[in-house]
Amino acid sequence: MGTNILVAHGGGPTAVINCSLQGVVESARASGRVDKIYAARFGAEGILKGDLLDLTEVPAAEITKLGHTPASAIGSCRRKLGEADYPVVLETLKKFHIDCFFYNGGNDSMDTCNKVNELARQEGLELRVIGIPKTMDNDLDLTDHCPGFGSAARYAALSAAELALDASSLPIHVVVLELMGRNAGWVTAASALAGRLTDCEVLTYLPEVPVDEARMLADIERSYARGRGLLVTVSEGICGLDGRPLADTGIVDGFGHTVPGGTAQHIADRIIRELGLKSRAEKPGLLGRASIPYVSSTDRSEAYAVGRFAVESALKGESGSMVAIRAQREPEYRSSLCLVPLSQVANVEKKFPLEWIAQGNQISDGFFDYALPLMGDGFPEYALLRR
Amino acid sequence: MGTNILVAHGGGPTAVINCSLQGVVESARASGRVDKIYAARFGAEGILKGDLLDLTEVPAAEITKLGHTPASAIGSCRRKLGEADYPVVLETLKKFHIDCFFYNGGNDSMDTCNKVNELARQEGLELRVIGIPKTMDNDLDLTDHCPGFGSAARYAALSAAELALDASSLPIHVVVLELMGRNAGWVTAASALAGRLTDCEVLTYLPEVPVDEARMLADIERSYARGRGLLVTVSEGICGLDGRPLADTGIVDGFGHTVPGGTAQHIADRIIRELGLKSRAEKPGLLGRASIPYVSSTDRSEAYAVGRFAVESALKGESGSMVAIRAQREPEYRSSLCLVPLSQVANVEKKFPLEWIAQGNQISDGFFDYALPLMGDGFPEYALLRR
Repeated sequence: MGTNILVAHGGGPTAVINCSLQGVVESARASGRVDKIYAARFGAEGILKGDLLDLTEVPAAEITKLGHTPASAIGSCRRKLGEADYPVVLETLKKFHIDCFFYNGGNDSMDTCNKVNELARQEGLELRVIGIPKTMDNDLDLTDHCPGFGSAARYAALSAAELALDASSLPIHVVVLELMGRNAGWVTAASALAGRLTDCEVLTYLPEVPVDEARMLADIERSYARGRGLLVTVSEGICGLDGRPLADTGIVDGFGHTVPGGTAQHIADRIIRELGLKSRAEKPGLLGRASIPYVSSTDRSEAYAVGRFAVESALKGESGSMVAIRAQREPEYRSSLCLVPLSQVANVEKKFPLEWIAQGNQISDGFFDYALPLMGDGFPEYALLRR
Repeated sequence: MGTNILVAHGGGPTAVINCSLQGVVESARASGRVDKIYAARFGAEGILKGDLLDLTEVPAAEITKLGHTPASAIGSCRRKLGEADYPVVLETLKKFHIDCFFYNGGNDSMDTCNKVNELARQEGLELRVIGIPKTMDNDLDLTDHCPGFGSAARYAALSAAELALDASSLPIHVVVLELMGRNAGWVTAASALAGRLTDCEVLTYLPEVPVDEARMLADIERSYARGRGLLVTVSEGICGLDGRPLADTGIVDGFGHTVPGGTAQHIADRIIRELGLKSRAEKPGLLGRASIPYVSSTDRSEAYAVGRFAVESALKGESGSMVAIRAQREPEYRSSLCLVPLSQVANVEKKFPLEWIAQGNQISDGFFDYALPLMGDGFPEYALLRR
């Protein structure tokens, strides 16, 4: 009798989370050892309800489409499991005779993964549990970087460069770009590449450094006065000197956190009122994790590879681990995969290094040495005839 | 003695306005009849100041980069010329011995173009004046469509589809997407394609139909209740039954118009407060006219072609005309170029046909028969395994 596997998505999707799913399915098929390939419909909720999709017979051509499908093709959810939920999860795993369980997500999901693994051990269940990393935020520990980040960073960098060109070619307003990131500035830092790719002034603010708004306005006024156009890029979650978000939506989420948002509009309003300049705020929001044309080729292939590696590892008998990426950057970028203990990654948040932030609004070369190889495919050289 | 030419950009750029510039420069070089190729630095302001860029010797490789450079590579401005400005324009044209003047812009620019042409006639100046059409809004008359629109429409359609997939794969909130378009709904209409490409409910609101907000909220509640996720797409300029914008920035622009904006956030706020649903507003804003990865290949090649055609026409002695696109869609899409009188396109705004709007928030096939060929390159088939 062969092996039955179950894969589930947890939390917000990325542009390449389906590439990992493609890796799982294609690796399971290639092994010749897997009987049934199940996917949880809408993540943990599907597992709790026993609502599984049977992907075993889905045509290969349909699976291939996963490579260019954003969001979660099987559905995800934001439900954080409570103690009472875990026995229900195990019931579903038993009911469908699941031998290998793959949970593709971030910190919370790795915690869930770890608890499922421990409970299975306690109950003497023959279950192998492997976590597949995913987060656009890049805040998972023990991995050089996280699948999903390279594409989100490429989106931030190229979008910012395109806005910077617009702002410098028609310099009638300060453009403020809001990017996702409540606590970690990894993605927004990538937007600083716009200053290197264009002739526009670029100021970048991350949540890791409390913002002195008076100084920010002074810096904006001075940079705009240089006449080359100005783009200000901010993480949605940046806070003032009092530690409170510059703006929020007034909404409290399921975890009791106030949902940030409107930060760019808040700054644009102050620029208009207090500096007397025109300003407009742009907020692509979820597009930063869903845009396929901006996907990093490196990110796509690594996301695929972690899915494959998870299946291969489980079929070798591994359990209780998350797939992690090791990378070298000299003489050229190369990455390889390994396993790290779930217990060590669960609930740990990797912060953006403060030494990569200069003068509060500049990003140093150290970050780009780290991030550029992950952002794939090189970057365009623009024609800047007006210089 | 050969010919000297001047090209200038007017108003907001598009993702492919530099392709038209590339067409102008390469066509002028290929003709063997052009001595000097000048470009106005920052549009009309450069002409008024006599601040011209000499592109004559710019390497061909640099000109090629124009094909993937968004915004205006020579700079643009929003200055509307007054009566006193036109003699100054003519001074610059005389000073640089300009024989052919190309103005690349929308309605306002075609008006300027027309007045320069008339004044030159009155003064007996040997000047040929050709307008090159450009606007993401697609609101220029006498041309089947306008270069810049196809790419903005592709951006709207694909971005909306990507957001729709996010909204339906993690259906925890109503996503509201705001797209550019103060008075004309052409671009926002394209976003309705998301309903055809994905499994998500999509409601679309254009500025051509006054919005009954109570009915809009009822429609949103009903659509969301179907459980497939909901994306609401709106033009920034949609108005209520009283004819006033649903939201505005409070800013008055140089022409005395209140600047719209925040429309999506306004709707999201009402959804949260009055329907008790989660909602988030996204506003990519200027990215909708600056994004290169979403450029339509058809749009790019047509934008290049109108630039070439303008130069070829002027060198044949034509003047006082705008390049226009004629298109046939059966049995397959083909377009050709012609000239139309500047006097007939100046200051005329082409509105979105009301018969293409159904039930206030659905876009009919008639629009897509018209627009899909302009949006280039086909559209992805997504893997929707969760269905």
